[in-house]
Parts: sequence; structure tokens; C-alpha cells
Amino acid sequence: VPESAFSPLALLGVGYIGGSVALAARAAGLARRVVGYDVDPRVTVLACSRGVLDEAATTPEAAVEGAALVVLAAPVAGLAPLAQRIAAAVAGRALVIDVGSVKAPVVAAVEAALPAGRFVGCHPIAGTERSGVGAADAGLFRGRTCFVCPGPRAAPEAVAAATAFWEALGSQVLRLAPEPHDAVMAAVSHLPHVAAFALAASLTEQLPQLEAQGAAGAPTTSLRDTTRIAASSPPVWRDILLANRQHLLPLLRALEGRLGQISAAIAAGDAGALEAVLAAGRAARDRLVKGS
Amino acid sequence: VPESAFSPLALLGVGYIGGSVALAARAAGLARRVVGYDVDPRVTVLACSRGVLDEAATTPEAAVEGAALVVLAAPVAGLAPLAQRIAAAVAGRALVIDVGSVKAPVVAAVEAALPAGRFVGCHPIAGTERSGVGAADAGLFRGRTCFVCPGPRAAPEAVAAATAFWEALGSQVLRLAPEPHDAVMAAVSHLPHVAAFALAASLTEQLPQLEAQGAAGAPTTSLRDTTRIAASSPPVWRDILLANRQHLLPLLRALEGRLGQISAAIAAGDAGALEAVLAAGRAARDRLVKGS
Repeated sequence: VPESAFSPLALLGVGYIGGSVALAARAAGLARRVVGYDVDPRVTVLACSRGVLDEAATTPEAAVEGAALVVLAAPVAGLAPLAQRIAAAVAGRALVIDVGSVKAPVVAAVEAALPAGRFVGCHPIAGTERSGVGAADAGLFRGRTCFVCPGPRAAPEAVAAATAFWEALGSQVLRLAPEPHDAVMAAVSHLPHVAAFALAASLTEQLPQLEAQGAAGAPTTSLRDTTRIAASSPPVWRDILLANRQHLLPLLRALEGRLGQISAAIAAGDAGALEAVLAAGRAARDRLVKGS
Repeated sequence: VPESAFSPLALLGVGYIGGSVALAARAAGLARRVVGYDVDPRVTVLACSRGVLDEAATTPEAAVEGAALVVLAAPVAGLAPLAQRIAAAVAGRALVIDVGSVKAPVVAAVEAALPAGRFVGCHPIAGTERSGVGAADAGLFRGRTCFVCPGPRAAPEAVAAATAFWEALGSQVLRLAPEPHDAVMAAVSHLPHVAAFALAASLTEQLPQLEAQGAAGAPTTSLRDTTRIAASSPPVWRDILLANRQHLLPLLRALEGRLGQISAAIAAGDAGALEAVLAAGRAARDRLVKGS
């Protein structure tokens, strides 16, 4: 795959992940020119001033004109409408990728909208709780995993090009079909986000007391780590959780079931039942996160 | 407070926190001699070989004989029975402290068991998910907060000595009555532990699939951080959660309520309701953990 295969690069949705893709591609010498579009024009102005974009386009159609690589980096629910808008404007040779956290519904809808074979669903596992183009980081993908999840219509050369792109950004590419990708992510990312948001939200009524006692200024490491990802963007995660509801809902029921067991055991003073759930949690953690 | 006020030091319950107290006191020159007792005699043998203890006692009564400082460091449910056993053997001049994560029921029961005025409830906020004396760390309390939570019977000179002890170990001492201590800890430590254990336990059925796909070997940072404290000791946390049930149960109901809201919004495809809970979580997180 020649490096010119990725330039000009069109970035649709200029946030933390998309901005990082642009910066990383530029740093790797893959994108001599980056044109961007965002629903919020102030964001593209900021991105130009930070060197993320060379040019701000006023429509997605204008952004993709002549682009060799189109990166769809809007929140998940915005990807299919974006694909429909740009379908007629995408160059025949262009590769189109996304960076969304849910793949099956995105790949189905975007493949249906775009010219056959051009789209390859991608998911770099590199996010943090940060958001916004101001947090964009050229090194975000170095040493991280990127899932490449082609749908049934993806052309083999498009899959090879997408793989080469992420490898050039320093990622280790793992190929996985969209459905098993979504099943895995529901467990290792989406359910943890639900737990963190719910945990933080459940402490809302305690905030005045905690702040009055100064405890909020010196939080425990327990609270800091369990709620870190609750600092993530609510609209971004709203879309992800809704898009992956099929895989997420059964896990959410399981989480509610485990909390119910703990709650019932504490209310009944049942030490044996309580320890059994805690031990199941510790055993699962030891298998989920090895060597920690 | 003269340094000899703390030596010999008797350690009852030789685990991660107690072992760290012994090592830290020794490193600070406060404990020339440390005698320890544990229900598991293999633990005291290990602790002697690691330099945590100078001598292993075979009963708690023998351990506290002649001790200037007695540190109760067994799991929370074991503290009152230990206090009853040593009550007649504790020297008249001895200071008795504990390191338990729950204070109101512990302080009430231990004060009732021991000679008047000698006991000062303490809680160093320095734990991690580690457990066992093998993980003991002389620097564990440096730069950390230690709550000193005297009950109504604690002698002022005992409170001053306990404060001096923790400050000599490098901690910042905050004085707080047992009840508000337990209310704060329910929110910033105990509920996060419940959430982490429940989250990890809820993924038990997914483990074979996750391991088959190699995702468990390269977990997301989301999963790693949200479940870190699920690697904590189940029996230790069983005791803590049961001892603080009065403050914990209402928070657990709130967490179940928030999860129910998320679950209902996802099932109904209600984007507005879902984003509202996520936004409440983010807002609470921003206030709970400042500047992160």
C-alpha cells in the first residue's frame, strides 16, 4: 500500500479520536493534507488553529471531494446519515473507514449507503475518558490494539489498506467479524461504562455532605478508578449503548442480578452468600485482567 | 509523645495493612520490637522471615503482654472478639488502635471491651486491592490521609498519641467522629467496592468466550480500572460491607435505581432519558474527583 493511498485525508467528525487519527496520520507521513468537517463549525476552526486540519469544509460532501481516505469519526448514531450524505461525492478510489465503538449495525448501514467494497469498519481500542479535539494526541494509537471488522461487502484490497493504515499508526491490528466484536466490547467496555456512570450518578445526593467534609477533595483511589470513565462524553456513550443494546442488555441484567444478590445478602446479614458473590467477582477479575 | 511510647508494638492480625504498619513503625524508629499474632500460624512464620515481626506469639494475650502499642489489624468482624480476649492482658499504659474501614460499630464494641480510655479508632486511607503480609509496604502511609475517630470514652492523651503515631508514619491525620466517617466511607469506598465486585462477577459467564478471543489478555483500560478493587480480599470486604450496612444499604438502593434507569432507557430506546443519567454521572464524577 503506497503512502499516497491515504492523502488527502477527509475527517468527518472532529473530536478526540478523529483528531488523534488526523494528527497520527500526519506524524506518520501518511497525510500531507487533512480536510475536516464537523457539525459544530467552531470545532473545525479550533482544529485548524491546532494543526489538526489544513482546511475546514462546510459540508461533508465538500470534505470528501478528492479524498483518498475518508475517516468517519462522528458519534455512532451519526455514521449512517453521514455515509448517505457523502455516497455520491466519494471518489472511486477512496477508502472509507470509521472509528466507532459498535460495529455490526454501523457496518451494515454504512456498507448499504456507500459504493460497494469501499468501507471497512474499524475500532481502535485507544480511548480514554477525554473528549474534544483539544485532547487529540498524535501518539494515541501507538502500541494499542485496533479491531478491523470488515462486513461482507468489503473489498480485500480495502481491508488490506485499512490494516496497513492502522499498522503505520503503530497499532496492532486484530481482525474480528462485527458481531463477535460487539459481544466482546459489550463485556469489556460498554458494561464497565454503564457501571461507572451509574455509580457516580448514585452518589449525587451525597455530594453536598462529601464536599462539606472535604472528602471530595481527597477521594479514595477506589472512587477515582471505578468512576474514571464516568468522565466520558454522555452523548457519545448514549449512542454506543443504544447501538449495542442487543449484546449489552443481557449483561446489564446480569449486573443488576449480582447487585441484587449483594444487596439481599447485606440486608439479611448473610455473610456466606455475600462472600460467595465477592469471591465470584475476584475470580472473574483475576481471569479478565491477567497479571495485575 | 516520646518515641518509646510505641515500643514494644503488638500486632494482632498480620496482613497487608497490619504488616505495613509494623514495617512503617520500624522504619520510622518507633518500634524497636514487634510481636505478632495471627489466627493462621503460617502467616506469623512468614512475617518473621520477612522482618515484619521479631516474634510470633501463639495467643493474642501473649502478644500484648508488656506492649506499649497494640494494633488491632484483623478483619473488621474479628476486632471486638480480639479486644475481649486481650482486655485483661493489656498493660495499663498501653495505647490500643485499630485500622478498620468501619468505625462506629467497631469503636463502640472495642471501647466497651477494653479498659476505659485506652482505645482510639483509626482508619488509614491507604489500602489497595492487594492483600496478605507478603504485600506489606513500609511506605504505604506516607503522604496519605489517616482518619482518627475517637469514641466518647477515648482519653485525650490517647488521641494525641494515636495522632502522633500516624503523623510519624507520614500520614496527614483528619479527626472525624465514627458515624460521619462511616457515612463518607460508604460513599467513597464501600459502594465502589460493591460496584466493582458486582461488575466483575456479572461477566463470569462471558469468561470462556472472552478468553477464547484473546480479549482477556489485552483488556481495555475501562475494564482494568473499573474492576481493579474487585481483586481485593473477599472475607475482608464481606466484613466491611456487613459492618457498615446501615450507611451502605441506602446507597446500594440508589445504585440499583440508577442501573434500572439506564436499563429501562436502553430497552425503550429512549436516548434522552439515557443521556440524562449519563450526564448526572459525569457531573457527579467531576465534583467527586476534582481536577482529573
